[in-house]
Amino acid sequence: MSVAEAVKPTPALSPVERLHQLVAADMEAADHLIHQRMASAVRLIPDLAQHLIDSGGKRLRPLLTLAGARMADYAGDGHQKLAAAVEFIHTATLLHDDVVDASSLRRGKQSANVIWGNKPSVLVGDFLLSRAFQLMLETGDLSVLGILANASAVIAEGEVLQLKSASNLATTEDHYLQVVSAKTAALFAAAAEAGAALAKRDQAFVKALHDYGMNLGIAFQLVDDALDYSGRQAIMGKAVGDDFREAKMTLPVILAYARGDAEARAFWTRVIENGSQSDDDLNHAIALVEQTGAIRETMRRAHVYAAAASTSLSILPPSDIHDTLDAVAEFCVERAY
Amino acid sequence: MSVAEAVKPTPALSPVERLHQLVAADMEAADHLIHQRMASAVRLIPDLAQHLIDSGGKRLRPLLTLAGARMADYAGDGHQKLAAAVEFIHTATLLHDDVVDASSLRRGKQSANVIWGNKPSVLVGDFLLSRAFQLMLETGDLSVLGILANASAVIAEGEVLQLKSASNLATTEDHYLQVVSAKTAALFAAAAEAGAALAKRDQAFVKALHDYGMNLGIAFQLVDDALDYSGRQAIMGKAVGDDFREAKMTLPVILAYARGDAEARAFWTRVIENGSQSDDDLNHAIALVEQTGAIRETMRRAHVYAAAASTSLSILPPSDIHDTLDAVAEFCVERAY
Repeated sequence: MSVAEAVKPTPALSPVERLHQLVAADMEAADHLIHQRMASAVRLIPDLAQHLIDSGGKRLRPLLTLAGARMADYAGDGHQKLAAAVEFIHTATLLHDDVVDASSLRRGKQSANVIWGNKPSVLVGDFLLSRAFQLMLETGDLSVLGILANASAVIAEGEVLQLKSASNLATTEDHYLQVVSAKTAALFAAAAEAGAALAKRDQAFVKALHDYGMNLGIAFQLVDDALDYSGRQAIMGKAVGDDFREAKMTLPVILAYARGDAEARAFWTRVIENGSQSDDDLNHAIALVEQTGAIRETMRRAHVYAAAASTSLSILPPSDIHDTLDAVAEFCVERAY
Repeated sequence: MSVAEAVKPTPALSPVERLHQLVAADMEAADHLIHQRMASAVRLIPDLAQHLIDSGGKRLRPLLTLAGARMADYAGDGHQKLAAAVEFIHTATLLHDDVVDASSLRRGKQSANVIWGNKPSVLVGDFLLSRAFQLMLETGDLSVLGILANASAVIAEGEVLQLKSASNLATTEDHYLQVVSAKTAALFAAAAEAGAALAKRDQAFVKALHDYGMNLGIAFQLVDDALDYSGRQAIMGKAVGDDFREAKMTLPVILAYARGDAEARAFWTRVIENGSQSDDDLNHAIALVEQTGAIRETMRRAHVYAAAASTSLSILPPSDIHDTLDAVAEFCVERAY
């Protein structure tokens, strides 16, 4: 056996890891900024922020910003600041979401609101949102600031919209898509386009990345919502059945209700509209979304949006980053299997 | 009796009302922006925001921005946008404060978290904070944006700092002043200096207004904290004894504990450190802060900061606005008597 044969092959990297590798130096600089700017003389703030920021999130959103800047041949260091800002905006929404949803797990760890209480979670979210704007200001680019400030407002609108439809079985697929576009995909879109906007690329270039992020974000959320009823949530490090307990009207429930018989509809009415849930109901709900093909249909649509993400990019020149972004879109759906 | 004698005299305006009158057209434009920009297709957002924004607040912070711009002879319309942004930042902090403090009353009305629940209060706060940044962006002035973004981060730091000292009788006056400077006075300071910074006045001019706002904000909070133990809170439209129930270490408690005898200290230890409070305890606490002169001393210091506010302005040229800002500082303390 030769020495070469004895060397273990490097395990294949996932597309997200490959993207990380392609922008490694930028991501390291952004990570440095993230840790530097979450500092505060008030120790509880970095303690709490770090709990979430160093909890093994994939940094997908800041990676999109760095990838977009690279595709646009951006030469400065502003994209690193934007990437850090994007991660802060994302972390702030996670902190506030966990308070709003009364979640107990986030990325497989106890969520911050459980460890420190709701109060610091709300306030540290506010702190990080303000820090995000301070970082963006340092780029000196008002139009990019506008893109991210708008996304930040739209996220809050999407979350409120979602609250309004909770427990309401009459929620339409259109309403659901509106919620998903706002609460999740708007930040993916803004993150993806921000780097190219900073590089002053033309509208078509910036829009290609915006549309990529928007479609990717929708696909991402569809998969998340399918996974919440797939019984494989433990792998994701998320509490199982969160959406069910919150009576959120996600696509699996919308479809399972629409396709259900009288008995199934009575079940959904009790657990979602009347909020009367007992121990075995989650398992029954999982069985119903499976039987009616609601999970399969949700995943099928996620595939459609992932494909649309790649199509959005097609006007941009070929490159390693371009190929990897295509693969990321596919991977975000494949992670569910 | 002549006709002239029969005409009723206009009731004397308070200094805040006089300030309002001096910048009436600007304030009307800012108010228009406030109502226009809190709009959203998601109806719950303006409904909830309006509940607070139209609840009879005095708009003191945006008035400072408009007054500062006027003193600086600012000629554009950016100060109106900044004033609206300042009110949004303030409203966002009120919404999040009421969630954090679990308050039930705000400006004499049920607080938003009681009517709509904590979730929309958190999210509408986020929405308004984002809208504030969008408004500031429209001025096109990065340095002013920096002033307000920094204030927004400092406010969150101050609130977290306050949480940390709750229930801790070892809290020092220094710590208390640090909390007050951050959670309250930083926004007064930023609001007051923003208009002059927008007008590109020199550092001494901008600093005079900053220092005025900082001192005014500290005086304002000292009075608020005294009123929470003065038994006259009903007039303020605030729930009585909020700070007491939250075991906040405000100056009246710090002083009353420092000056108390063994029996009094045992009382404070039980109600503040151990959080064991019964129905009559608030009345006893009010009696103790009165007897020890803690309220008088808190008010005395408020007077000192109000005087310092006027002194800060003294390098600026005389004008009606200048006189009125002096009177506002005095009035903010007098409102307690």
